[in-house]
Amino acid sequence: MSQLTHFDDRGNARMVDITAKKETHRVAEARGEVVMAPATLQLIEQGGLAKGDVLGVARVAGIMAAKQTPALIPMAHPIMITGVNIDFRPVPPNLVEIRGIVKTEGKTGVEMEALTAVSAAALTIYDMCKAVDKSMVIQNIRLVHKSGGKSGDYVREGETRWEK
Amino acid sequence: MSQLTHFDDRGNARMVDITAKKETHRVAEARGEVVMAPATLQLIEQGGLAKGDVLGVARVAGIMAAKQTPALIPMAHPIMITGVNIDFRPVPPNLVEIRGIVKTEGKTGVEMEALTAVSAAALTIYDMCKAVDKSMVIQNIRLVHKSGGKSGDYVREGETRWEK
Amino acid sequence: MSQLTHFDDRGNARMVDITAKKETHRVAEARGEVVMAPATLQLIEQGGLAKGDVLGVARVAGIMAAKQTPALIPMAHPIMITGVNIDFRPVPPNLVEIRGIVKTEGKTGVEMEALTAVSAAALTIYDMCKAVDKSMVIQNIRLVHKSGGKSGDYVREGETRWEK
Amino acid sequence: MSQLTHFDDRGNARMVDITAKKETHRVAEARGEVVMAPATLQLIEQGGLAKGDVLGVARVAGIMAAKQTPALIPMAHPIMITGVNIDFRPVPPNLVEIRGIVKTEGKTGVEMEALTAVSAAALTIYDMCKAVDKSMVIQNIRLVHKSGGKSGDYVREGETRWEK
Amino acid sequence: MSQLTHFDDRGNARMVDITAKKETHRVAEARGEVVMAPATLQLIEQGGLAKGDVLGVARVAGIMAAKQTPALIPMAHPIMITGVNIDFRPVPPNLVEIRGIVKTEGKTGVEMEALTAVSAAALTIYDMCKAVDKSMVIQNIRLVHKSGGKSGDYVREGETRWEK
Amino acid sequence: MSQLTHFDDRGNARMVDITAKKETHRVAEARGEVVMAPATLQLIEQGGLAKGDVLGVARVAGIMAAKQTPALIPMAHPIMITGVNIDFRPVPPNLVEIRGIVKTEGKTGVEMEALTAVSAAALTIYDMCKAVDKSMVIQNIRLVHKSGGKSGDYVREGETRWEK
Repeated sequence: MSQLTHFDDRGNARMVDITAKKETHRVAEARGEVVMAPATLQLIEQGGLAKGDVLGVARVAGIMAAKQTPALIPMAHPIMITGVNIDFRPVPPNLVEIRGIVKTEGKTGVEMEALTAVSAAALTIYDMCKAVDKSMVIQNIRLVHKSGGKSGDYVREGETRWEK
Repeated sequence: MSQLTHFDDRGNARMVDITAKKETHRVAEARGEVVMAPATLQLIEQGGLAKGDVLGVARVAGIMAAKQTPALIPMAHPIMITGVNIDFRPVPPNLVEIRGIVKTEGKTGVEMEALTAVSAAALTIYDMCKAVDKSMVIQNIRLVHKSGGKSGDYVREGETRWEK
Repeated sequence: MSQLTHFDDRGNARMVDITAKKETHRVAEARGEVVMAPATLQLIEQGGLAKGDVLGVARVAGIMAAKQTPALIPMAHPIMITGVNIDFRPVPPNLVEIRGIVKTEGKTGVEMEALTAVSAAALTIYDMCKAVDKSMVIQNIRLVHKSGGKSGDYVREGETRWEK
Repeated sequence: MSQLTHFDDRGNARMVDITAKKETHRVAEARGEVVMAPATLQLIEQGGLAKGDVLGVARVAGIMAAKQTPALIPMAHPIMITGVNIDFRPVPPNLVEIRGIVKTEGKTGVEMEALTAVSAAALTIYDMCKAVDKSMVIQNIRLVHKSGGKSGDYVREGETRWEK
Repeated sequence: MSQLTHFDDRGNARMVDITAKKETHRVAEARGEVVMAPATLQLIEQGGLAKGDVLGVARVAGIMAAKQTPALIPMAHPIMITGVNIDFRPVPPNLVEIRGIVKTEGKTGVEMEALTAVSAAALTIYDMCKAVDKSMVIQNIRLVHKSGGKSGDYVREGETRWEK
Repeated sequence: MSQLTHFDDRGNARMVDITAKKETHRVAEARGEVVMAPATLQLIEQGGLAKGDVLGVARVAGIMAAKQTPALIPMAHPIMITGVNIDFRPVPPNLVEIRGIVKTEGKTGVEMEALTAVSAAALTIYDMCKAVDKSMVIQNIRLVHKSGGKSGDYVREGETRWEK
């Protein structure tokens, strides 16, 4: 197993030098979940129709957070993301699944952008529902897939595709 | 169960009006975990000594993210946080626990600040170790305790205090 | 007519000293409009139902921009806004009206926050519709009402209240 | 008339995927106006000489705001702008015209950057003069010209070139 | 000599808890210098009149940077600054002196805000003149005076007041 | 000596047009110093071992500030930095030297990013030690070396390489 590349040989943190890396088409998909009381999920599902669109606001938060990734994650490189999709899948009785897909053409991957987008969307769901349910839990934030770059593709085992 | 306060009676998202609320001393504690390969945890634990301080960088990221909360969470109020502590507890063989405590004297609580700080610290651990372990999972991000404000205290059941 | 207070007596720009001002309850309401092709307004109105919620995204943009005001307007003071509402009123055949109301309890007013929120909401409408209509015009961004503070209330003449 | 591209086929907002687009040289020019009391315009014009440079501060605000566009407009792509000019043209007795020109070599256009720069410059003029004139109105924010990219050039009808 | 308060008793960095501190009127004054070639200083001094106002732009940068201090300095508290003045004093043949004064009514001091403002103004002077002089040096960034708060006043020895 | 390129021929500030410049590999190295009481330096050196890692926090601050450069320096172009290293060298009895190296592949240089990173690291050292020593001085912030781009290399005279 290799060393942690974000440190030099004296153990000092650094932004890894990617100057010489090639620009390639890169995609990363992350997922996560918010577990909540069944009544909270019902409120969210009703809201999408008439009483307030929790997931619509969370989607905007996730997309905007993807762009803020280098300002939040100390060693992350600035990167010109070229596309973001955030999707939600309510899983009754008590779960909202979140999927974030981020794309770029650049020298480094967008895993952190996808994970940050999903985290911000989850936090926004928490924020908008916390008046009725403080016990929600954000869980299972994970990288599901990445492609592009020298290190090649990564596919997490045991994940299933979201059908539309 | 009450309505979602972040929407008006036509279902439009809003930043809830807290003008008339009193400034009180408020504290929130959130926790979360990063699950990883045992070899990754060993690298992190060694690094704290000599090869690169993953948790030291993640602590700074968490503290700075607490301050960025209103820029990330759309309906969150700007708030003058007056103290932040981020702590880590490696739990061999494969877990790092994260605890974030945020304080303020203000009109609204700091739950979102504590949850955002823990999330950013977890994402930073992922970022700094992803070269050796892409399968890490961020889980169990939750509010453990809050005090202050009109709605009173919240204590999550089943949580144990961290001894030093 | 008094001097421009944002300059000292040598003509150098400054952030005006408000240290000695009292904290009072303050409200500001700004409004503005986006003029567009009738077909564009139809797309927006349909979208609110099924094809994509332009105004929902613009509302989030406006609320978040209110919080960014001190980072955009050089001499604006940081201010702890305590509430934001952004509303839209489609006026067929070719207009969307925007209203932003911002509140605080602070030493200075929130006029700039309300005007910035309305501007950002208008720019977001432009952005989301520009693929079909580059000729949209943002117009009539104005302060409609403010209250609180030593200088007293301001009510713009000729404005009518929005009925719900 | 085509669909609104910022939504997918289920109506969910997204950052449009521009990964496959070519990097081309792109320019956008936006304009806008601030209408004010004649006495306010006189103060601004005097200030440029001796009593405080309102337009100089507004120019800096516009240039810096162009760089903040992706943080303000939710679906805007991050973009590496390569040049910004902000110019002002006082039109007695009661108007300041603003022109913003933004350039890039990138995968998407800089219309939003130009419109945001002009809006921020206008808001800054409002901020710096509001102590003497709260009735100012920001109007006629519009795209005047854009070139570059697959969709080709856009030239707004009825606009005249600014002579120096 | 006391401990470094930004660390807890295990040596972990933290944002110091100031919740219990009183809000008092606080002022901090910092100063610094940019040393440059005499020809560069001449360009700056001419520019203030006709060819481009380096110091006007640097003043705006300093004021805006004061507001960004908590986003730059990891352990700095968010603080509601209530006034900023940035002044420059060309000292022929080769020096520009910078003075930043920041005020607040708050629980902690504004020393970092004043020092950050002076640093950003100095960096901006460097940026705007670097095409003609890469050898400029920023030096002597220091706290000159602070008042307010429990720890009392600080006055740096050997400093002289700036006459207007 | 040439004109200041950050102004047009009427003396108005602008972001210089670099659209036509080639992307080349660029490196910039800046250095600076914090002068302090000998007892403060001792605390910092002890802290690196057990009582709190001042320089570790300052390194993170420097790396993150490099990414914020375009938001702080008004006329600086956004730039995709591809690597950052911040190093410290305690020089007993009373000095910490700071070195920042920034890399990119881009149309313009990274001198400002390197100088900003060093400045932010220095300010962070000041912040974390100011409880024990308010008299620290930041000095000698300077560009030591740059390479890449049309204007060619710059090497500051009289500088010595840091041996590891």
